[in-house]
Amino acid sequence: MSYRLWYWPDIQGRGEFVRLALEAGGIAYDDCARDQGAEALMANLDSHASGRGAFAPPYLETGDGVVSQVANILAYLGETHGIAPSGVADRQWLNGIQLTIADLVAEAHNVHHPVAMMDYYEDQKPEAARAAAQFRAERIPKFLGYFEAALAANAGDWLMGEAWSYGDTALFQSVAGLRYMFPRRMAAIEGAYPKLIALHDRVAELDGIKAYLASDRRIAFNTQGIFRHYPELDAA
Amino acid sequence: MSYRLWYWPDIQGRGEFVRLALEAGGIAYDDCARDQGAEALMANLDSHASGRGAFAPPYLETGDGVVSQVANILAYLGETHGIAPSGVADRQWLNGIQLTIADLVAEAHNVHHPVAMMDYYEDQKPEAARAAAQFRAERIPKFLGYFEAALAANAGDWLMGEAWSYGDTALFQSVAGLRYMFPRRMAAIEGAYPKLIALHDRVAELDGIKAYLASDRRIAFNTQGIFRHYPELDAA
Repeated sequence: MSYRLWYWPDIQGRGEFVRLALEAGGIAYDDCARDQGAEALMANLDSHASGRGAFAPPYLETGDGVVSQVANILAYLGETHGIAPSGVADRQWLNGIQLTIADLVAEAHNVHHPVAMMDYYEDQKPEAARAAAQFRAERIPKFLGYFEAALAANAGDWLMGEAWSYGDTALFQSVAGLRYMFPRRMAAIEGAYPKLIALHDRVAELDGIKAYLASDRRIAFNTQGIFRHYPELDAA
Repeated sequence: MSYRLWYWPDIQGRGEFVRLALEAGGIAYDDCARDQGAEALMANLDSHASGRGAFAPPYLETGDGVVSQVANILAYLGETHGIAPSGVADRQWLNGIQLTIADLVAEAHNVHHPVAMMDYYEDQKPEAARAAAQFRAERIPKFLGYFEAALAANAGDWLMGEAWSYGDTALFQSVAGLRYMFPRRMAAIEGAYPKLIALHDRVAELDGIKAYLASDRRIAFNTQGIFRHYPELDAA
């Protein structure tokens, strides 16, 4: 059967890390809320609330139950479909990287929603400007430097060596998201991370990813998602 | 050998989730920076930077390598020392809960550092007041309601049934931290989460936890950690 992925239908958001791994791996899935809408997503989420449900989208209905939280879903897919290394130590290392990407994603979201997660960006613009300044100056280089070092620590074309894993598609999305959100900042600094940028380009050429990016399944970046481009928050 | 845990020596912080699991499980560890100081922690972190190092504390030197990120460390300890269930589906569910606790922790930290993670709380007090209002009103009930439902979905005294796991010590710490940070808010609402509060009390009575809490290894909550009590941020 196909997996049933549940995530917001109009954004890449956290769900995109799952979509990319599924697409790269050629793993069948239904992106349920894209067909059925956000109300169906909320109804489905609620339907699991008295059992082993999810705190929030994205989550996967596997047929046996619900798997939620991006890193947890990816570890599950990695193990089930071989899009992660097989050794225990390798898997732990990869999971640690993925959780660091989750930290980056949470911090990127916090830039445009620093003081009120449930309110609009427009209601917290001065605060967002402050948050963006430190994120651009200190946090982006710290995260990208860590990923660059991780790539340097491995032999081979991919994060985990000779075969791509969900960590590679997640690093691709991290670079793509930061480029969309902070084009001037990324243009100024990304030359310092050559292995990471080369990896981004290599992932874009994977058959499954190339087809996905050219399809209408790939939602365009927009200012409803995690990575949002507000020109006033960007600077070199 | 003992594990070598590296975390900031003067706070509970994220490291406390690891300490509690180790203490409850009677697993030998050295809390290295408590003996050697924060500079030794930074030097040790740097010593791994060209290999498979950590992005940030806490991390564990296992003898075979470094395991970083709280949920990753706990999954490792769970598997290695039997402080997690043995079934794959149970472990996935537990990992999803732990990652949701990680989200709670990140949001709690964001309350007192909404716009500038690297600056002082005192430099972002008005913004923190805004962040705290929404966190108290909307986010705490959402998280605690999810944990309460998770407990209700299982038979037995513990999150995963008949035996305690690292998920229980993590839920204990979540309740303890929120009570310290928001005593008025928690007093007003915690009656709505009877299973969670009962679990907190049950964890406090585990032999390893009881001994730990009475020892000087348990650092007191303070206003340097993740959960910080600033009276001006609390309200019923």
